[in-house]
Amino acid sequence: MKIDDCEAWARHQLAEVEAALEGLVPATAPAGLGLAMRYAVLDGGKRLRPLLVLAAAEAVQGEALAAMRSAVAVELIHAYSLVHDDMPCMDDDALRRGKPTTHVAYGEAQAMLAGDAMQALAFEVLTPDEGIEPALQARLVRLLARASGSAGMAGGQAIDLASVGKPLDESQLRDMHRRKTGALLQASVLMGAACGQTSADAWEALAEYGDAIGLAFQVVDDILDCTQDSEVLGKTAGKDQDANKPTYVSTLGLEQAQAYAIALRDQAQAALRRAGLPAPARLAWLADRLVERNN
Amino acid sequence: MKIDDCEAWARHQLAEVEAALEGLVPATAPAGLGLAMRYAVLDGGKRLRPLLVLAAAEAVQGEALAAMRSAVAVELIHAYSLVHDDMPCMDDDALRRGKPTTHVAYGEAQAMLAGDAMQALAFEVLTPDEGIEPALQARLVRLLARASGSAGMAGGQAIDLASVGKPLDESQLRDMHRRKTGALLQASVLMGAACGQTSADAWEALAEYGDAIGLAFQVVDDILDCTQDSEVLGKTAGKDQDANKPTYVSTLGLEQAQAYAIALRDQAQAALRRAGLPAPARLAWLADRLVERNN
Repeated sequence: MKIDDCEAWARHQLAEVEAALEGLVPATAPAGLGLAMRYAVLDGGKRLRPLLVLAAAEAVQGEALAAMRSAVAVELIHAYSLVHDDMPCMDDDALRRGKPTTHVAYGEAQAMLAGDAMQALAFEVLTPDEGIEPALQARLVRLLARASGSAGMAGGQAIDLASVGKPLDESQLRDMHRRKTGALLQASVLMGAACGQTSADAWEALAEYGDAIGLAFQVVDDILDCTQDSEVLGKTAGKDQDANKPTYVSTLGLEQAQAYAIALRDQAQAALRRAGLPAPARLAWLADRLVERNN
Repeated sequence: MKIDDCEAWARHQLAEVEAALEGLVPATAPAGLGLAMRYAVLDGGKRLRPLLVLAAAEAVQGEALAAMRSAVAVELIHAYSLVHDDMPCMDDDALRRGKPTTHVAYGEAQAMLAGDAMQALAFEVLTPDEGIEPALQARLVRLLARASGSAGMAGGQAIDLASVGKPLDESQLRDMHRRKTGALLQASVLMGAACGQTSADAWEALAEYGDAIGLAFQVVDDILDCTQDSEVLGKTAGKDQDANKPTYVSTLGLEQAQAYAIALRDQAQAALRRAGLPAPARLAWLADRLVERNN
């Protein structure tokens, strides 16, 4: 199915991702665990990471099943990290994606277990008995595990915890966000790309694209956190400021932060052109869209 | 290196596992996260799961690197589950492996992140850039992810949470423990076996061995919990009773629970003989040892 209009393409892909999540996150898991997992991941969120996976896979004309499983897996990792991040011992947040957070709805113990099980499920969906070549399965797991762990997302969260109330300079802030959100966004691009053939040069260029949009995403998040209200965001606005956390706005000021987001978007587009992929249109569109979003 | 004496073999293997964990759990992870991970997994525990992996790998003359990585991975999963299980919102326990629990030593937020990062690391160590055939990497991830997630360990913990204060009959108790501890013990055996060649019949027999020792382990745990003190156990004794959780002792009575442990051990040994493996001695010894242990 060929869809020229990018908005229509995204709607179509999101419906496919939703259907895949529906099928792969088991309602049957015992003692309410499956319900908590589904609550945490279904029917919510912008699904930016799955769209990046699928756009990158389209760009390299990659394997469809591997791409969809990768899209589901990165969203499961992202959603589990939100569940744990929202818990009282972390950010203690009651609102997420416009709904009560998972621990508010299901209790802290079940929320922690649901997050744990969602992480395991991410790796399980990447390693089906058949339908994805085993070497590709291993490569996808490698990319996702590295991006999720102590060198990536979890490490960034640890820096975030430790940095409350401390002034970070821009390079420290960048290091934190490269890990906390950037690693998984970049992995989304690379997992999609791994589903097809790429030269080493194109791979490097895509890694740069992923790194740049990963940072841009966070810069824009910080801008929105202090310029939009909770209703538009679907989560508590202003909470980084309230928690005395360093942000790009507090570090660079609003105008410079806005200019930085644009510069990162341009860097991503330049890297994407350099990659010379067969079908880069969706990736180019996503880089624009994530800088221009309002929630 | 051929070691006939099983105790000496186990000591040798445990030193190798400890060295592998030392090397693979990064002290360098940011903002204290690496220290919390190392605290949670190094220098403690019986390491039963790694021994099962390595014994099964020896039984089938499996690949050494794949077996050691599998041993590390299952221990990381086990250790992360203990970190999360001990937290205030779950079992709220202060003592583990004779030391303060991770959240007591590092705070709840860091403990949750350490557990999350340990799970990711488990899958990362199974998917190195080289040294393990990619198809084997994928198979090991598949076995571990299924055993850890909502159909396995996490699902068992959810049943455990939901069953406090409820009388469970023996089949419900067995279902809970098959998931909560049995799935990962069985996966340890099967991951070791996956490192070599096995017939489909031998695989089935090993799955039965793993299932039987998995249940036996829990029955013995329940017996020890009410017959040994905290000092011998290295964790809080009597806590299941205090928490009004159903156990094999509360369900079957002490004598019948002891007889059941012996019967399961005999079933495991019979399955092992049926598997007809080249070198089953360590697996046979481990089945005896885990029923005869006192902590």
